[in-house]
Order: sequence, then C-alpha cells, then structure tokens
Amino acid sequence: MKKQFVKDLRAGQTVQDIFYLVGREVRDRKDGSSFLILALTDKSGKIYGKIWDNAKQVIEYAIPGNFYQITGSVKEYGGANELSVRDITEIPVEQIAKEDFLPTSRFNSDELLAELKTYFKLIDNPNLAKLIDSFFADNEFVEQFKTAPGAASVHHAYLSGLLEHTVCMLRLSKAIANTYPEVDYPLLVTGIILHDVGKIKEYVYDKSIDHTFEGRLLGHIMMGYEMVSTKIDQIPDFPAELKRVLLHMILTHHGHLEFGSPKTPKFVEAFLLHILDYTDARVMMFLDATEKNKGVKWTEYHQFLETNIYLKDQE
Amino acid sequence: MKKQFVKDLRAGQTVQDIFYLVGREVRDRKDGSSFLILALTDKSGKIYGKIWDNAKQVIEYAIPGNFYQITGSVKEYGGANELSVRDITEIPVEQIAKEDFLPTSRFNSDELLAELKTYFKLIDNPNLAKLIDSFFADNEFVEQFKTAPGAASVHHAYLSGLLEHTVCMLRLSKAIANTYPEVDYPLLVTGIILHDVGKIKEYVYDKSIDHTFEGRLLGHIMMGYEMVSTKIDQIPDFPAELKRVLLHMILTHHGHLEFGSPKTPKFVEAFLLHILDYTDARVMMFLDATEKNKGVKWTEYHQFLETNIYLKDQE
Amino acid sequence: MKKQFVKDLRAGQTVQDIFYLVGREVRDRKDGSSFLILALTDKSGKIYGKIWDNAKQVIEYAIPGNFYQITGSVKEYGGANELSVRDITEIPVEQIAKEDFLPTSRFNSDELLAELKTYFKLIDNPNLAKLIDSFFADNEFVEQFKTAPGAASVHHAYLSGLLEHTVCMLRLSKAIANTYPEVDYPLLVTGIILHDVGKIKEYVYDKSIDHTFEGRLLGHIMMGYEMVSTKIDQIPDFPAELKRVLLHMILTHHGHLEFGSPKTPKFVEAFLLHILDYTDARVMMFLDATEKNKGVKWTEYHQFLETNIYLKDQE
Amino acid sequence: MKKQFVKDLRAGQTVQDIFYLVGREVRDRKDGSSFLILALTDKSGKIYGKIWDNAKQVIEYAIPGNFYQITGSVKEYGGANELSVRDITEIPVEQIAKEDFLPTSRFNSDELLAELKTYFKLIDNPNLAKLIDSFFADNEFVEQFKTAPGAASVHHAYLSGLLEHTVCMLRLSKAIANTYPEVDYPLLVTGIILHDVGKIKEYVYDKSIDHTFEGRLLGHIMMGYEMVSTKIDQIPDFPAELKRVLLHMILTHHGHLEFGSPKTPKFVEAFLLHILDYTDARVMMFLDATEKNKGVKWTEYHQFLETNIYLKDQE
Amino acid sequence: MKKQFVKDLRAGQTVQDIFYLVGREVRDRKDGSSFLILALTDKSGKIYGKIWDNAKQVIEYAIPGNFYQITGSVKEYGGANELSVRDITEIPVEQIAKEDFLPTSRFNSDELLAELKTYFKLIDNPNLAKLIDSFFADNEFVEQFKTAPGAASVHHAYLSGLLEHTVCMLRLSKAIANTYPEVDYPLLVTGIILHDVGKIKEYVYDKSIDHTFEGRLLGHIMMGYEMVSTKIDQIPDFPAELKRVLLHMILTHHGHLEFGSPKTPKFVEAFLLHILDYTDARVMMFLDATEKNKGVKWTEYHQFLETNIYLKDQE
Amino acid sequence: MKKQFVKDLRAGQTVQDIFYLVGREVRDRKDGSSFLILALTDKSGKIYGKIWDNAKQVIEYAIPGNFYQITGSVKEYGGANELSVRDITEIPVEQIAKEDFLPTSRFNSDELLAELKTYFKLIDNPNLAKLIDSFFADNEFVEQFKTAPGAASVHHAYLSGLLEHTVCMLRLSKAIANTYPEVDYPLLVTGIILHDVGKIKEYVYDKSIDHTFEGRLLGHIMMGYEMVSTKIDQIPDFPAELKRVLLHMILTHHGHLEFGSPKTPKFVEAFLLHILDYTDARVMMFLDATEKNKGVKWTEYHQFLETNIYLKDQE
Repeated sequence: MKKQFVKDLRAGQTVQDIFYLVGREVRDRKDGSSFLILALTDKSGKIYGKIWDNAKQVIEYAIPGNFYQITGSVKEYGGANELSVRDITEIPVEQIAKEDFLPTSRFNSDELLAELKTYFKLIDNPNLAKLIDSFFADNEFVEQFKTAPGAASVHHAYLSGLLEHTVCMLRLSKAIANTYPEVDYPLLVTGIILHDVGKIKEYVYDKSIDHTFEGRLLGHIMMGYEMVSTKIDQIPDFPAELKRVLLHMILTHHGHLEFGSPKTPKFVEAFLLHILDYTDARVMMFLDATEKNKGVKWTEYHQFLETNIYLKDQE
Repeated sequence: MKKQFVKDLRAGQTVQDIFYLVGREVRDRKDGSSFLILALTDKSGKIYGKIWDNAKQVIEYAIPGNFYQITGSVKEYGGANELSVRDITEIPVEQIAKEDFLPTSRFNSDELLAELKTYFKLIDNPNLAKLIDSFFADNEFVEQFKTAPGAASVHHAYLSGLLEHTVCMLRLSKAIANTYPEVDYPLLVTGIILHDVGKIKEYVYDKSIDHTFEGRLLGHIMMGYEMVSTKIDQIPDFPAELKRVLLHMILTHHGHLEFGSPKTPKFVEAFLLHILDYTDARVMMFLDATEKNKGVKWTEYHQFLETNIYLKDQE
Repeated sequence: MKKQFVKDLRAGQTVQDIFYLVGREVRDRKDGSSFLILALTDKSGKIYGKIWDNAKQVIEYAIPGNFYQITGSVKEYGGANELSVRDITEIPVEQIAKEDFLPTSRFNSDELLAELKTYFKLIDNPNLAKLIDSFFADNEFVEQFKTAPGAASVHHAYLSGLLEHTVCMLRLSKAIANTYPEVDYPLLVTGIILHDVGKIKEYVYDKSIDHTFEGRLLGHIMMGYEMVSTKIDQIPDFPAELKRVLLHMILTHHGHLEFGSPKTPKFVEAFLLHILDYTDARVMMFLDATEKNKGVKWTEYHQFLETNIYLKDQE
Repeated sequence: MKKQFVKDLRAGQTVQDIFYLVGREVRDRKDGSSFLILALTDKSGKIYGKIWDNAKQVIEYAIPGNFYQITGSVKEYGGANELSVRDITEIPVEQIAKEDFLPTSRFNSDELLAELKTYFKLIDNPNLAKLIDSFFADNEFVEQFKTAPGAASVHHAYLSGLLEHTVCMLRLSKAIANTYPEVDYPLLVTGIILHDVGKIKEYVYDKSIDHTFEGRLLGHIMMGYEMVSTKIDQIPDFPAELKRVLLHMILTHHGHLEFGSPKTPKFVEAFLLHILDYTDARVMMFLDATEKNKGVKWTEYHQFLETNIYLKDQE
Repeated sequence: MKKQFVKDLRAGQTVQDIFYLVGREVRDRKDGSSFLILALTDKSGKIYGKIWDNAKQVIEYAIPGNFYQITGSVKEYGGANELSVRDITEIPVEQIAKEDFLPTSRFNSDELLAELKTYFKLIDNPNLAKLIDSFFADNEFVEQFKTAPGAASVHHAYLSGLLEHTVCMLRLSKAIANTYPEVDYPLLVTGIILHDVGKIKEYVYDKSIDHTFEGRLLGHIMMGYEMVSTKIDQIPDFPAELKRVLLHMILTHHGHLEFGSPKTPKFVEAFLLHILDYTDARVMMFLDATEKNKGVKWTEYHQFLETNIYLKDQE
Repeated sequence: MKKQFVKDLRAGQTVQDIFYLVGREVRDRKDGSSFLILALTDKSGKIYGKIWDNAKQVIEYAIPGNFYQITGSVKEYGGANELSVRDITEIPVEQIAKEDFLPTSRFNSDELLAELKTYFKLIDNPNLAKLIDSFFADNEFVEQFKTAPGAASVHHAYLSGLLEHTVCMLRLSKAIANTYPEVDYPLLVTGIILHDVGKIKEYVYDKSIDHTFEGRLLGHIMMGYEMVSTKIDQIPDFPAELKRVLLHMILTHHGHLEFGSPKTPKFVEAFLLHILDYTDARVMMFLDATEKNKGVKWTEYHQFLETNIYLKDQE
C-alpha cells in the first residue's frame, strides 16, 4: 500500500513511493543538454517529475503503462508542485495494490454487496430468483461485479462504481412498490440488479479505467443482453414471456434510441428501470460537481448536465 | 346524486336522470319531417339521444353547456346504445353534484390531504414551514387544491388529480433522503408540495375540465411562480437566497426549455423535483393505457409515450 | 391454388373460390331485418361480401382469421365491386396455398437462392466461409430464409422479400471491390448475407405478415446478433477479433442510433453494409410508388421518403 | 475621468492613470527570483503589466476586482504592448467614473430617453398609458433603465444598451402601423417599452457587466413579468383581459420555448414584439462583426449567427 | 362577370350563372336508377349540384377542369345548401373573367404597382436601377408580376398576392434606413423587389392556383436566381461583386437551410430581406386566422404557426 | 520539380530547394536582438525555418503567399525538425510546378479522364450525349475539370480530386443497371458526370486550395446548376422535361435541405446520385483516417464521421 499520495505532497518533502507512468518527454536545456519530464499518477492525481541527468538512458527504461518506485523531492515551480527525481526503479504489476492507483467507491464493497443481497428475498418469482442465483453463485462473476467501475468517466468512474450504482437504484426503488402497487416489483428489482452486468466486460480496470475493444464496438447493452440470455437458457422451463420481457428491459434501459437503446421501454417496469438509472447517474454528476466546487457560487459549464451548476448557500 | 350512469345503461331500460348536454343537431327523415339528436354525457361516458317530435321547438330549449333531466328508454342501434327521449327539463347548475359529471380520483381526497400533511413535519426549516403554513391556513386555497385536476387530458385529468399527483410524488421521494443524504430534503418536499399550485388557476373544472384563458396564455408555471412569490413576500425576513432557490425550482420543474421551463434545473433538488414530476406523469400514462386495454397484447400508438405499450402475460 | 383473384373479378361473374376473412359486421336494413358484411382478401386485394339471409347464424360461423370457400356473384355498388354471397364454408388452413394469400416476390426464390450461393466462393476467409456454411447447411434455416418477408410494410413486405433484399445488396456490392481495393470484400459479403437473419424470427408470415412478440420487444438486430453469435461460438478457434468485428456490423447496419442501431459504424465495411441496406430499401420504395402511380405526374406524399415522388415522362 | 486608455497607449509613453485589476500571477525568473504579472483593463481593452520588484509584497496588495492608480511606462514585447509598472496605489470605487471602465452606448442616454418618451403619446389606451406612467414616474427605475446593459455579451453589452435596444425597436415598429392597420399599435408600443425591464435586475454593471444570482436562476423574462404584474395590480380597474394579454407578450418575446419563453406568441402583437426583438439583436451582431473586421472579406465563425460574415466591397 | 356567387346563395333562389367544375360522381338511387353529383366552385366557395335525369349522358359532357353555365335552384339538404340542376352548358375558358373564380387580393393591383414604383427612386445605385428597369420595362413580366399569387396556400394564395407581399415588405422596410444607417438601403430595396420573382414561374393561376412541374422540381428560389442572373448578364459592366451579393440575397431569403435556402444570410441586408419576408408571411397568417374566427376566443390549431391563436377582446 | 520534400528531411541534411511561405514572425532573443521564424510548406507538410541575422530586413522581403528558394540545414529542436536558413530568394510563381506544392490525387489524371470517357458511350440518349459533348469539347473546361480539387478539406482535397471523385462514383454505379433495370442509367451517368462541375468555380487551387468568394456566397450547387442550364439552352430542341429533371438532380444531390440542397430528390435517379456522392465521400474519409493512423486501434474523434474509427487487425 502506498503512503505518499500525489494530492498530499508538499514542497520540500522527500518522496519514496510507487507511481504509475502515463507519459514522458525529452526537453532541451539552454546549454544544449537535455532533461526528461515524467507524467506520474496515483488515484489521487497527477504530478510531473523531472530527471536532469542521463535523460537518454532513462527514457529507454521508463515506459508508459508501467509502475515505478520514485525517489526524489518535491519542488514548487510556477505555482504547482513537481518532483525532482533522483532514482527510478520498475515495480512488477503483481506487487501493486490496485486501490492505490485507481479511484475507488467511498463505500465499502463488501457492505454494498451485503445490502444488494437483502433485495434477493423480495424477488418472489421462482424463475427470476433462480436467474439471480445463477449469477451470484458464480464467484468469478461476483468478484468482477464487486470491482467493476460504473463508467469510464463523468459518474461512478471508479472501482466498485457499478455495484454502488446498482445499490443506489435499489434504494431509490423502495418507494415504488408503495406508490404503484400495480408495478411488478420482483421484475423491477431483477432488472435493476442485472441491467448493467455487461459493464464487467465493457471496461478494463487493472491499471487504469478504459474501454475494452468489445466495449467500444458492441457496448454493455449488447454484452449484458447476451450474458442474461445465456444464463436464462440454462434454467429449465424458464417462461418464454418472462425471458423476452426481461431482455427487453436490459435493451431499453437507456430509454431513448439516441442514447443507444435499440428499442424504447414498452411497459412500466422497463420505463422505471430507465428512470432510476438516469436519476442515479445525473444526481451523482450534480453531487460530484458540487463537492468539487466548494466556495464558488457557479461551477464551470458541465458538459453532460449542459448547464452551470449553482451552489446554494449553506445556512 | 345520479343513479343511472351512461356506462351502466342497458337496452330496454327506462331512464330518468340528469345528463350534461354537449351538443345537438337536427336531422331530416325520409318523410320530410326531422328529428333531433342530443349528445349527452356524465362522468362515465357519452350517449346519443333522439327526440322524434317537435324537433324545432326542443332545439330552442336544449342549449349545450346546460344540464337536463332526461326521461326515456334505452335502445340498441347499430351495435351501440342510444336513448329514445320522451321528455327533457333543464336543471339549474346549483342542483348538480359536480362529482356526477366530472371524473374523480379513485382516491378519497380527504385521505390524500391527510397524507400530504404528514410530510409537513419533515420540513425542519422554519421559513419553509411558515410558507407551507401560509398556503394551507387559507381555506379557499385548500378547497381548490383538493379539487383541481392534475391536467386537462392524458394523465390525472380528473377532480383531485392535482392532489393525487402531489401525494404520489411525496411517496416516491421517501427513498431519496436515505439514498442521497446530501440532498436538502425539506427543500425538496416544499418544492413538491408547491410545484403545481398554479394549476388551480390554469383549469376550470365546474362543468367540464378545460383551460382558463390565463391558463393558456400564461401557463401554470408562471401563475404558480407568482402565487409562491406573493406568499413569500408576506413572510418577514424570508431569506433572499431561499426565495430565489425555491422560485427556481418552480420555474424549472418541467426540466427542459422545450417543455416550457424557461430555465433548466441548476442544482440537485431542482433536478429531483423535475424527475419526480416526470416519473409520476409517465407512470400514470402506462398504468392507464394498460388498464384500458385489458385483453390485448399491444395497445394502439400512445401519442405522449410515443410507442405502443405491451401488456405482459399475467401469470 | 386459387383461380379467381380479387383484382380480376368483374361485375356479373359467378364466384367459387377461397378467401381469407379479415372482418365482418352486422348492419340493419330498412325493414328491421339485418344483413352481414364480410371483408374478404387474397394476395391481390380486398372485396366486401354481403350475406342477406341468416345473418345472425352466419356470424357465429364466420370467424376473422380463417379461410372460407365463397360461392356467389359479383355486383357493382357505388362504383366498386362487391360479392353477393350465397354460400360460405370454412377451409382448414392446411389446405391453403400460402402464396395465394400473401404477396410474394416477383422473383423465383430458388433462383434467388442459387444466385446468393454464387457469392459464397468470394468469401476467401476460411472462418467466415465456415460461418456461412453453418447457416446454410441447416435446412430449416434455409427454408425460413427463403420464405421470410423483408419487412412488415413499405418495402419488401412479401414472401421471399428478405432473400430478394439480400441478393440485391450483393449485386450492388459488386462494384465496390473494384472501386475500393482497400475494402475487405469477403467480410462485407458475409455481413450482407447475415445482416438481416434476425428477420426470420421478427415476423410471422403464415396467414398474414406481422411482427412476433419478440420481434416488437427485441427487434431483428438483437435477434440476428444472437443467432450469429451462437453460430460463431460453435466454430472452433474462430478469432475473437473477427467475431467482434462481424457482430459490430450486424449491430450497426441501421447506421444511426435513432434508427435503432445501438452503435454507429466504426470501420468502412460496417459503413458500406449500412449504405447498401439503406439504398436497396429506399430504391424499392421509389420503384413501388412509381409502379403504383402510373399515369399521374406526382404521387401522394410518401410517409417514409418524406416527399411526393415525381414520375418523369417516358419518351 | 481617465485620460490614458489602453487602446491608445504607445511604446515609450509614460503612464499615470487608473486601471481595473482583473487578475495577477507570480512567475519565476531564471535567477530564482520572481516577478508579478497584472491583467489591467479599462473600457477600451486589456494590457498586461509587469512588476519586477517585491512581487510577494505587491501580490498581497493587488486584489482582482479593485481599481489601482498605475505609474510606469509602455514597452513592446513579442509584438504587443505591456506596462512596466513602477508604482501601484488602490483607488476607492467611489472615486471611479463608471464610464471609464465599462463600455457605453455610442448614443447619448438622455437623448435616447427623450426619443423613447415621444412614443408615449402614441399609446392612446388610458390603462396602458397609466402603466407606462407608473414606471417612468419612478426615478430610481428610470435611472436604472437608462444605465442597464442590454446583454452580458454578444450584443448591446454596454451601459445604456437596454435603452438603445428599446429605442431601436420603437423606430423599427413605426412602419408597422401603416402596413398592418389591424395591429393594436398602442399595445405593441407598450410591449416594446416594457419587454426587457427585467434586465435591470438580471445584470450587475457597477465594475463589470455580469449576471446577478437572480438573473441566472430566474432570468429577465420572469423578473420582468413580476415587475409588470406588480405595477398593474396597483392600477385600479386595470382590465383583466389587458393584463393577461400584456403579460403574455412579456413571457413570449423570445418567440420559442427553446429560447426560454415558456409559451409561444398567440396573437399578432406578441409575434411582432418577438420579431422586433430578434431583428434588433441580430442586426447589431452583424454590424458589430462588420465594424470589428474592417479589411478582411470573411470574419471568423460567429457563434451566435452560426456563420462567417461577408464584408461586401465598399464602392 | 358573375352575379351569383356561391357564398351568397340562399335556399329557394333560382340560379343561372357560370361555375367551375372540380369533380363529379354517379350515385345509385333506391329504385335502381342513378343520379349525378357535381362539385362546383367559384372564388367564394364550393357547392354540390345534383342532376337527377340522364346521369350517364351528362357525365360524358361534364368534364372537371371546365366551366359551365348552370341553370337550377337552391335547396337545403342536411343543413347545407345544394343546387338542383336543370341545365348545364359548357362555356369556353376565353369567356371567363378569371377574377370570378380565383381569389384576388383585397388591394387594387394597379395601385399596388404604382406604390411599388415609388421605391424605384430610392435605388440610387445606377447598376441596381438599371436591373430593376430591365425587369419593369418588360410588359409581359409586369403583367405576370401583377397577377401571380404569393403562394399556393396558407398566405397570399390569391391573384396579385405576390405584388401585395412585395409592397408590404417595402412598407415595413421604411423604418430600417432611419434605424440602421449602416444598411445599404438601395440594395435591400432591390432585394425585396426581386426576391420572389421566381414565383411567376412556380405557379399556374389560370383556372386554379397550383404548382407548375418546374415549380415543384426546382422551386422559386432557383428560378428567381436564374431570372435575375440572366438579366444582370445583359447589363454591360455590372460589377461582379454586386452580382454575387444580390444573387446571394435571392438564394438566402428563406433564412435557413431547412426552409430551402441552400446558404444562410452572410451579411446584414441578406438577413433583413429574410426577416421582412418571414414577418409579412406570418403576420398575414395571424390576421387571416383572426378574421376567419370572429366570435371565438381560440382558433383551431394552426399548422404553420404551430399554435392555437388567441382572439383578444375588442374593447 | 522539387527534390527535397518536407516530410523526407532529416537532421544534419543540407537543404537547397523551393518552399511556399505561409507566415512569419519576429521573436526576441535574450540578448535584446531578434530573429525571424518562417513557416514553410510544400505538398508533403510544414516546417519552421529560423533566420538569425538581419531579421528586420528579411521580414520586408519574405512575404507570405510567395515562393522562396531556401538554402540552409536541418536541425532537430524539441523533438521536431527545423531549418536553419542561410539564404532566401524569391522565385516567381510562373517557375513553380504546382504539383510540388499542392497535394495531388494518387491517380494519374489523364488515365482518370480516359476512364471517365468510356462512360460516354453508355449515354444512349442523344440529347444527354450532346450535353456531355458540349462540356468536354471545351478544352478550358476539361483542363479545369481535370485539375480542380473535390473539396477544400476532409476528402478529395487535392488536385484532380473532383475528377477522381466523379470516376469513383461512375465505377460504383456500374452495378446499378443490373440490379435495377427500371433505373434510367444514361440519365444517372450524365448526372454523375455533371453533378459537381460547379466546383471548378467554387475553389481556387493555384497556390493553395481555398474557396472563391462566389464559392462561399453561392456554393457549387448553384454555380453548377447555372453552368448546366446555360449549356442546355445552347442545344436546339433539348426537351423541357429532360432539362428540369437533370437540373433537379444537380440541385438535390446533397440529399437533404440541411446539407444545402434546396429540394430533396423526387425520383429514383436523383436519389441514387445523392447516395453515390455520399458514399464516395464517406468511404474516402474512412480510408484516409485508417491510412493515417496505422499502428493504433482507435483514431481520434473524426469531426465529420462523428465517431472514433476502429482499425481492425490485419491477419
């Protein structure tokens, strides 16, 4: 586990810890010699490091995409911190604690999973219950479901983001059964739990969070559809109507064709699945933007919310 | 109170009850004489009545927009019921029970109001509490708020529809406080209760549900804005920030400019107010369409949901 | 096989042949008695039949969705032909020649299939060749692929429409290899052949052409994706890259999210597959509308082409 | 009043005048010491100033948002002028002539106001005349109406811009009474004069032109609506119809929902108010862009006009 | 000249006047014989005529698209007037007064033309003056320009509608020169006069107002462009810059690509030409709808204005 | 002809060749003196040159838009090559080989023209054949048509790009005649050959490829329309129907109003012309982007294709 995180470094400090190298570049000095700039990250942020000697040799050794033990000290330059690097040693990826380098949900993933499982008993439809079981009896699936991010950017873009997102939707759904008794709540709960399972194949999240090739070419809607469809086919006598209804919910949970759902919701549970997904994603954007802009009244323009966000006075 | 409702009439029955006249027309008979067709309604539907004698005299007397005691009998003609009218007598509007002629919420409005008031104690902000009090201490307002429809068509287009819609949004909001503790729940509850108060001026709902002139020219967003703004100005020392924040929520609850909100939501409570409003309206459209189409698998195209709705098998 | 088709009937003729009943209705006569109107079709059009006697008994017997032997004669009434029906006898569906009642491609489906197979040898990629083989070695698939319509309305909405559409796209593609040698032509040919295979599950086409429930809830893109994915998984060592690339082409062949493709084309073969599909569908709409409007200069407004079509002078 | 404006400064000149500080930053020098860069403005433009000595002390003193007396000299550096600053002294805002720092209409505001008042006599409707009087009898309102900008950017973004915009619309309207005698010209004139009064609360314009919090959360349409509504309610017996008609014009003057009008114009005077507003704003953008690009044939892409503007040859 | 117009006919009257035949249809009578229905029009409206005898012979003679002298009498049937026709005689088109059958501007076309010509002297650019002269020195052009409709429906869809539209735009433009002295007013006036000249080729307006084939395939923008371009090329030394600027104005006067202008306005005179065109068309729609709906408060939904129109109280 | 192209220069090389000057700038040196940076291009790319002595004099002489013989040597600086310039001499434009400085089609323009002409014999309509002849008998036209670029950027933005684009569309069209025998292939071929002739007036392409003023104000659709229209008018007895049909194809070849076609295609040949144009342009974008991004899996976001492009594995 790391001890020195980028966001905590202060000018004057000595540094000896592991960082992830995302890029490097040779720059010329006035005297004709050259130096090396390294772009180093951990989960808390990015810092530039400078190596003044042996730039040409070091550049052969410092390969972006690897982890390095960095020895040096923190300097202030142009108002920002940078590292004056004395020594750099590669560290094999197996020795790395993934949580040091990738942002992680502020919630504990074991607790989130336990909370998720409390909803299983609300699924009082034996076929749906079997389907959920068949996913959660698979330890490899559970491990990935616990760890996968919820997105590559903007919201839930951190480890366990998928699980956190799923649990928040379940919490939100609680009021629905009371408000609309006509709604098939077991079906909705099943839809919530499974709607984004394709994301465990849409993203890689070992060194950094990014799309897989399949993820970009096919998308999590298609891949989740396939995963659920495959599991259903292994359950004897799963009703055909229930299969197509549930698959339709997976397909349509983005709500609109232009958001990548090839069909729009055709019954109320599919609509509610979409609205819960949309609500949780957008609320997280509002809360993130508010959190990151403490002290101002208006944030910068937010790309996805398509507005500047107002920070109300806190009485 | 009426006893004989349109939807319950059967061929052969004798009829003696009050109906609302929405139109009438003279038709020629083969023999050169003419007869009168009346379009009659109550809250349960529409039926045509025919008067074979003295058409010219009766037409002077039978004015659309009035109520009439109709005596006659039910006939079947071309597969549909119609009334053979023997006698027609005007009934003054004061003697009419409004509930006989306008559709009404399936919920009891006193119980809805009582449920609504249980949320008042959750508003632990003294200024917001005072504001809510100032509305609900006004008996005339309370009466209108209890009776007003929620829309002129499509969803909640019945007496007490506004109150039912407001209460359903409050029920849905319950899960939010648990899920997102950062949300200012008292503010959200206040926003829900007040967001549509302008509708008591947007609609007339004495004989039929329709827009007022102000309603069509100005809209309930503007009129609700004005009502809340006026009430706030009567509360001493109501904070300016809280006033603008709450008014912003009223303004933006349609969520998008193209739905008639002149600004879009700029903080999370305003966004949530919009999403709760949108969800309840859409869910009611799904449930209505499902209810009205029992027995088919696919409904006709739904104008507002922009799709045909699927009726799942009921196991 | 039928001998007397609706479009060829002439006033005065005696009729004795099978028709499909799509609806019926009882109407009252002046004298208080009633008669029955039948809506009868075959692939060439629709005609109304009237039964003057025993309307009440016949209506129990004449069920829409069945086939009936009709005996009677052709009358002209109000400028249109109608049938005066003397006798009506149900015919079991097994005795029906489907081609008499459903419109059929003007091309011979055996010849179309033979032409399609000439493209197999252009697929000089062994994995793609195996995939195509695995589909066309399955006789049940081939039978459905030969018979399925290409759409439920507007274009290729007739038996063997899917096959005709696929073959026309192959013909159009011929010039591409010469024009752009960079294009992977075997991949494109494979994509063309498989892009719409989901349609054999999207439509029913035994008595009339309509969507299946799965078809409306999931759509042919999803169902075709699943069929191709399943077949690929049965081929040992099929390259992962080739699988995702081909599945991407199936997914994106509608070209735009708003046309129901959950992703847009990301490489040139996927783009070309989309453009060939789009071109053939639109050209057929132009040709159909032109064919059906001989003699006028401008057709009515065409819903899909979003214009009135001009019929040029034929020199 | 200032004497030395940014746009008139020439290399070599000595400078001793007041500037507005919009930002500052410490930069490092090669020798390890540091210097301070100041961003200084007046209404004519922006210039950078450099302070070579005591950067750390000066930075405590030089606070963006204040005004400073600057003593120094103009240098050319990299093709642009900059100030070498010798001395910097804060000047209290009360001693500042606002016109030196904020851009101002090229027209004299007293003359514009006088011209505006010539239209009052055309309002030959006593209720509308009283309404206009009630606004212009209020000296504080008149003062703000004379000074307020017409926008925060793009067009009329200068002191008295609101008044100039209003007067130009009145001039444009003159031809309307002759062309369309059916138009209620007094109503249109009243609408023009009042349509943007909310802007005096939408903007601050003491040190720089910017939105108020209310302005951003509520917008000038809502605030103007409220101002006009309040004034009307103070006029005894103001007709209800005239009130809703005029308020509707305020509400709809942006013409389209997507431009922030919660309703669209429903009668011809409301439509004309919108079109005059739109025309004057767009013409000003064309004229500004043309003025600022003398000597080129095509301007850069214009964000709002969504085009590059062509500068015709001047014969 | 006609004396008896459709809208003035009253039941019981004898009729002897010319009507235009737009359609006819044979209908069966109870007794097995048949009768003929004629659809007859003049500029004031449409009336149905019935011929009871010799239907088969008359139908050979009564050809839609011709004019006929009708002798008969007015009957009331089902609440509407119809003609009982005794005699029908074809009248050659040369004997017809076009103004009897096509709607005509309420303004006198000679006076409109005279008013238009008063603007010629404002064109103090010799090249533009020559261009205008070259059009108005051509008597055939003048005759067509005086007579052509301004559109085929919705607004100015009557004889001399083009001229009326052009003159109204000139009137509206008067205030522009005062308001924006930077505008090249002679260029704008020239643009107004010529912007729609293509309409004399876009429409036929001898028997009814309709599009020509060229009109529908090419549109008046293209045809007007060609007419102006051709005229310019006949003027020696017409400046190339002025030509492209004026042609650009013709091209862009619909303002937006989606309204059929292949480019958008790139300078202020082109923008103003568009806005004047748009304003006059829309104002006419408002005034027409208001005129036709006297007595109601809200009109039906207006297709083009995309709203219901409000009729204000007339004090 | 040049020998040393920018993209082939290597550090250490001596340079003596002609370059095109697109810009220059004076920069200050530490010692108070200054130097000159030149931006130099040929068709293969851009390189910066530095002149250390006599910057002030050289700047008077080095005028952007001219060609210069440059003598100097290649240095590496900051990872990129630059030129250290010793001598600079202006070269008159007449001595320049245009192909050295403007990018050129990878195909030989004589061969492309010869291929184009092979399609002439397929035009078995004498009037269309005469029209094509009238263009290609004009040597000046042929020369421009052979040289003009197909666009100013994104695709075919090189000399002979127009010809290459036209020929590729002809190749693609070959399969159409077989697939749809109903299509008037001679008309389509004529449309392809002439659809973009306006581009020879839309662009300048002597020193660099850019729009003409006419090009930007009027566009190639309008200018091509005029050119074809003028040629047709010189052919005696050219049928009016054929003229309007062909002009319609020119007008509508962008397919949609929002792409600048003032009408949409109204018959199948016009639609096919559009689709061939669209296909060739888009395919070239895919192929270019693929070619330029060898070695990556995903390209940057492509502005026009509105996606990132995937580079499939090459087996």
